[in-house]
Amino acid sequence: MTRPYNFSAGPAAMPEAVLRTAAAEMLDWHGSGMGVMEMSHRGKEFGAIYAQAEADLRELLAVPTHFKILFMQGGGLAENAIVPLNLSRGGAVDFVLTGSWSQKSAKEAQRYCQAHVAASAQDSHFTTLPDPATWQLRRDASYVHLCSNETIHGVEFHSLPELKALGSDAPLVIDFSSHVLSRPVDWSRVGLAFGGAQKNVGPAGVTLVVVREDLLGHALPACPSAFDYKTVADNGSMYNTPPTYAIYMAGLTFQWLKAQGGVVAMERRNVAKAELLYGFLDASSFYVNKVDKTCRSRMNVPFFLRDESRNEAFLTGAKARGLLQLKGHKSVGGMRASIYNAMPIEGVQALVDYLRDFEKEQA
Amino acid sequence: MTRPYNFSAGPAAMPEAVLRTAAAEMLDWHGSGMGVMEMSHRGKEFGAIYAQAEADLRELLAVPTHFKILFMQGGGLAENAIVPLNLSRGGAVDFVLTGSWSQKSAKEAQRYCQAHVAASAQDSHFTTLPDPATWQLRRDASYVHLCSNETIHGVEFHSLPELKALGSDAPLVIDFSSHVLSRPVDWSRVGLAFGGAQKNVGPAGVTLVVVREDLLGHALPACPSAFDYKTVADNGSMYNTPPTYAIYMAGLTFQWLKAQGGVVAMERRNVAKAELLYGFLDASSFYVNKVDKTCRSRMNVPFFLRDESRNEAFLTGAKARGLLQLKGHKSVGGMRASIYNAMPIEGVQALVDYLRDFEKEQA
Repeated sequence: MTRPYNFSAGPAAMPEAVLRTAAAEMLDWHGSGMGVMEMSHRGKEFGAIYAQAEADLRELLAVPTHFKILFMQGGGLAENAIVPLNLSRGGAVDFVLTGSWSQKSAKEAQRYCQAHVAASAQDSHFTTLPDPATWQLRRDASYVHLCSNETIHGVEFHSLPELKALGSDAPLVIDFSSHVLSRPVDWSRVGLAFGGAQKNVGPAGVTLVVVREDLLGHALPACPSAFDYKTVADNGSMYNTPPTYAIYMAGLTFQWLKAQGGVVAMERRNVAKAELLYGFLDASSFYVNKVDKTCRSRMNVPFFLRDESRNEAFLTGAKARGLLQLKGHKSVGGMRASIYNAMPIEGVQALVDYLRDFEKEQA
Repeated sequence: MTRPYNFSAGPAAMPEAVLRTAAAEMLDWHGSGMGVMEMSHRGKEFGAIYAQAEADLRELLAVPTHFKILFMQGGGLAENAIVPLNLSRGGAVDFVLTGSWSQKSAKEAQRYCQAHVAASAQDSHFTTLPDPATWQLRRDASYVHLCSNETIHGVEFHSLPELKALGSDAPLVIDFSSHVLSRPVDWSRVGLAFGGAQKNVGPAGVTLVVVREDLLGHALPACPSAFDYKTVADNGSMYNTPPTYAIYMAGLTFQWLKAQGGVVAMERRNVAKAELLYGFLDASSFYVNKVDKTCRSRMNVPFFLRDESRNEAFLTGAKARGLLQLKGHKSVGGMRASIYNAMPIEGVQALVDYLRDFEKEQA
């Protein structure tokens, strides 16, 4: 039996092979007599799982040795507070607003710093990215924040800006929640990257943070110890009990990604998947994607039926074809297909076939 | 094949039936075509899982309707900051120190309030509980904090104090991480209870918070939105993406507890298990438990070999008999048997049999 194709924006589809391994090891991990959920986080069994997951993530994303990898809790929304608690020093921070997620980040940061809007794409209803040459960066900013892939608006930075070339010495912070591991990261341009795992990595409940070592150790006094990056780093992400099972699942996904050829191979596939879907949408007069072609997300493809009275029929028909969770985010409406790493091109083809058939049927 | 008995203090053994269900449903939950990890937290499938888990917990612990149940992230250590961020109003808070966990709570709270030590059992090396009649409670305290079961020192409040009778109008906050659901809770004496799930409920990564409604809405400005109890409550624990799979596992455990007869039946079993183990230890001159008999934990039983040079041989022999994770916490040393709900009395009997045999063999 083929599983349905699941286009959820997150928590999202996981590789079938990963789920099968997890099911098989549920009661007994590698002959230890314990399931992974039942292991002390300080024991040698979980220690091995953790070390492997960290090493694999470092290898996959080519994270330099002067960056720490942290496994935390709270997701992207908690990081919206945790990042300024750790990095702002109570001063000014530049935000580039490109959709819902960067807007939320800027709003939350106001509790801890002067959140300054350096650029915003709101005028285009977040269908474009503001040209870095026009960003109003402050000289005194503690860091510059952007969301490198906006899950809701379907907008992606296909390359990261080089802040130095824009006259800023501040470190760049990126929220890469919804496209982490879909392509390589240029760490020479990044000070800190964070992302909830539930889109492209594993189950909800673990947050990845990759942070340059020199940025540690400046948390505000109000920062809870459990969310002080230096405390987390100094304790190998085990100051508080880590979300052990979620880390294990992320680790299985990292192993799967390596077996697929790593992030360079994934990027090739993701480009092909995105071209297939956007190509069909652009050629159709029945559907529309409104995002500028230069910054369309390869992961999250929001689209609309030009006649929105057909939305419900569309979703019902999709479900009958085994195409799940295509409804758009409530703040945007319409449809959204999230085509993360775990979505094979066959799933995108099945969606395109359905889009074509539905259009014909309704004509 | 019998699984080994796992005495880990947490993350800890889970009921085998719960793990089997989870493994069977890993790729397809109830014919939805999705595993639980792959479901949008806002979809109807996960909505049903969440609602059932919350209702079952409310039923099991007889939580009154004027208390909210929250599923959060960060564990007990994060709550050490989150509680004062939400409840202290920046004023004074009374702490009762009965072991490592309450000590950590008081220390972390100093970031946000005046943490006042109302009583401490440090002089007895945390082998007793300070008599409530001697507690120095402040008139102006925002709340009184205690840890109702100290996982490391093996000390338990067998009943909760009635603060009103002690002259305090402050709400009582209890950290019930390591004995939640092992016995009923007298909610008339409690304002807020919190607990990491990884000891007696489910996997690490979800934190239970049960809070009286009138205590919501007073968070300090520095409180991250994702940890503001009112925000969490108003959004049904879905302000940020909740740890969906951990909640599902907790829900399966709640179902299992109901099938076992609920917390009253579990308490009976836990008393029997504890009496079996403490009874053996007390009758032996080879082993010793140092905690006063009036406040011994039914969940965590620290004990020592009088001749500690035999510790390694003891642990090696235990493992060979399928008795896992008996090493004591590094801060206390010796051994520790955690005998949570998921530990059947057969496991405790197997441990007692081994204790007896090891003693004979070494004589």
